[in-house]
Amino acid sequence: MFNVLSVDDLSQDFLISLWDEAYDRKGKRNKKLNGKILTNLFYEPSTRTSSSFYSAMKLSGGDVIPINNVTFSSVSKGESLEDTVKTISQMCDLIVLRHNIAGSAKIASQVSGVPIINAGDGNSEHPTQTILDGYTIYHYFNKKIDNLNITLVGDLKNGRTVKSLVKLLTRFKNNKFNFVSPENLRFDGQLPPNSSEVSDINKVIEETDILYVTRVQKERGSKYNYELSIDQLDKIPKNSIVMHPFPRVTEIPSSFDKDPRAKYFDQIKFGVWCRQILLERILL
Amino acid sequence: MFNVLSVDDLSQDFLISLWDEAYDRKGKRNKKLNGKILTNLFYEPSTRTSSSFYSAMKLSGGDVIPINNVTFSSVSKGESLEDTVKTISQMCDLIVLRHNIAGSAKIASQVSGVPIINAGDGNSEHPTQTILDGYTIYHYFNKKIDNLNITLVGDLKNGRTVKSLVKLLTRFKNNKFNFVSPENLRFDGQLPPNSSEVSDINKVIEETDILYVTRVQKERGSKYNYELSIDQLDKIPKNSIVMHPFPRVTEIPSSFDKDPRAKYFDQIKFGVWCRQILLERILL
Amino acid sequence: MFNVLSVDDLSQDFLISLWDEAYDRKGKRNKKLNGKILTNLFYEPSTRTSSSFYSAMKLSGGDVIPINNVTFSSVSKGESLEDTVKTISQMCDLIVLRHNIAGSAKIASQVSGVPIINAGDGNSEHPTQTILDGYTIYHYFNKKIDNLNITLVGDLKNGRTVKSLVKLLTRFKNNKFNFVSPENLRFDGQLPPNSSEVSDINKVIEETDILYVTRVQKERGSKYNYELSIDQLDKIPKNSIVMHPFPRVTEIPSSFDKDPRAKYFDQIKFGVWCRQILLERILL
Repeated sequence: MFNVLSVDDLSQDFLISLWDEAYDRKGKRNKKLNGKILTNLFYEPSTRTSSSFYSAMKLSGGDVIPINNVTFSSVSKGESLEDTVKTISQMCDLIVLRHNIAGSAKIASQVSGVPIINAGDGNSEHPTQTILDGYTIYHYFNKKIDNLNITLVGDLKNGRTVKSLVKLLTRFKNNKFNFVSPENLRFDGQLPPNSSEVSDINKVIEETDILYVTRVQKERGSKYNYELSIDQLDKIPKNSIVMHPFPRVTEIPSSFDKDPRAKYFDQIKFGVWCRQILLERILL
Repeated sequence: MFNVLSVDDLSQDFLISLWDEAYDRKGKRNKKLNGKILTNLFYEPSTRTSSSFYSAMKLSGGDVIPINNVTFSSVSKGESLEDTVKTISQMCDLIVLRHNIAGSAKIASQVSGVPIINAGDGNSEHPTQTILDGYTIYHYFNKKIDNLNITLVGDLKNGRTVKSLVKLLTRFKNNKFNFVSPENLRFDGQLPPNSSEVSDINKVIEETDILYVTRVQKERGSKYNYELSIDQLDKIPKNSIVMHPFPRVTEIPSSFDKDPRAKYFDQIKFGVWCRQILLERILL
Repeated sequence: MFNVLSVDDLSQDFLISLWDEAYDRKGKRNKKLNGKILTNLFYEPSTRTSSSFYSAMKLSGGDVIPINNVTFSSVSKGESLEDTVKTISQMCDLIVLRHNIAGSAKIASQVSGVPIINAGDGNSEHPTQTILDGYTIYHYFNKKIDNLNITLVGDLKNGRTVKSLVKLLTRFKNNKFNFVSPENLRFDGQLPPNSSEVSDINKVIEETDILYVTRVQKERGSKYNYELSIDQLDKIPKNSIVMHPFPRVTEIPSSFDKDPRAKYFDQIKFGVWCRQILLERILL
């Protein structure tokens, strides 16, 4: 049984092949998953992620059981995660799990009778976010993910997306990383070979291919806040791209949204495309 | 792109044609919207309206992403309405928006990549309610909406449905309006030419074709309460009809429900019929 | 119109025929309910039951309107159960109702324009739970439900499942019941002819065919708590089965889950199979 718990579960070949298919099919509808049922089991609410899986499943003709309020129901009767997962796995073909505690997806996979996709477990992993982040780069850099200059900015300590993305990008050749954050929110994962930590984004922005802006993690206790100005953003080269895992707070002004380098809404669309292929690969 | 933000967006010809089709098809199932995805984006809960769109979409074979708890998720991470709408519009073909602030639907339509149907924005507009109200009259008065005596009763100041309905009915010929309300809750929209404000419903009820009873708007701050008695209701003529946008509180006793003049549950059924046609017109 | 409000609504012939079909079809997908719409109208949350009906409906190609937050919407505007049910029945073909007050399903059935399935009304009835409990026995005892020794353990006073199951099993021949509970939580339904009340489970466990363990009803005010040990559970005969309506708290250790006699997760799967057939029988 094929679970997607971590980026580590996804080989290079698998990713390239998934991205190529997503590129070719671009979310086109089919009926491949007719009669298949996915359960969105969300302990922590996430409109964006649950809707994306919902849409992806529907694009292939499958069905979705939406459970967005687990904490209001079984759990309030004292049920363990294991029992809830074992129970739900009797009624569907796949569980997409979002949970506030790191390691939950792994625990779920050990008891589930159907595959588990980790849609975010606390501060740990959110592999389908990384798949869509990687696809966005693949899409805009001529199906290549090497020789890129990537600038990551924001709270690099608490954001799981940055850690997973860096892990992914270091698998490819000659990528260079600039980590831009305040002292107390520095990247605490393993620093890749070709990387530097800088405190002033202006020192690296002009040579940046990908500016990856992260969100202030208010709900995880961070108090850090920042705003990139239009002037700063405008310094990135013409063929570079600006990404953001969303939601955003103040990091990027909405007046930048119409700039052709702003790709954060494309990321959301690409998320549906990639998840559609992933669901088919797991369920067929 | 065709948005439905206000009754003003809907021409006479469009409405008559939609009503004629609804009358002919009566909610019969088809597969015209197979593969299309509607998102019910509800910032303010409304079982009635969200279920009606859900059912209407399903009747034509389409799919629905139900988002009934926006305030529990993205918004709690500080996301703006604009960002949520831009995001959701990447994942579906149409957004049905319910929001507690007037003007929200217009703002949404300015940033959305897919059409917006306003399913109620604060105290402002709720155009599909007006479509179904108009249809109910069209249905029961031989496909005519003129030469009618309409009595509107209740809190006429805070109810958006009355304002929109009056706007609609004044477009047709020779309709006469009686506004019945307490002094401090008088209709504050533009009074149509052929209208009178009365404080005692008994003065007009015997010549009323349509008695439109409105709900006490408790959640919008009104403290006004009233009850029509069976005796009062029984005074309306035999071929007249009693309407109510629902939910009701105490305005109409449930013992009147079986009276053939009570049409408020038909309104709900007609709402599904009309919305089905509307969704097809927008999406096909 | 065929409502399922109580086990009393279901004849022996109907049940046997439903179970036989469930046994033959084992939840296999079909399109018999294409275009039919079920509404899950849940006043009290229940992930397990609502998901089971969702899955069952989807297995036959039907659609589901999920209303899991009734108390947040219409009801907060002061709407009665009757009005909500009348309203929802205008928009779908069947209502599955869960409500916290005993008798609600009956009230709903008196005003609804479509069939009602009672999915639990307070401490009263939950007939589809009894259908699946009965099926589990039918499945594992060679399509027979007689000459069985049934031990029911736990809070037998507050649990509705036990009362309904006993009612069902007494319809069949030569079943013997052992009621095991503390003094203040004794079974208060009608004791069947062939039954005994015992305080020590060890006195009956070795001759038990079916050990039916019930949950501590914390949310209904019970403070009683207990744990069966692996040693105790291991004393039941080899071909006996252990059942539990779930969720469980501490009653059965999870280390027993892999024992071939543990059938409580099969019960959940069987629930989907049985409900699928029931939905078809009502809607076709």
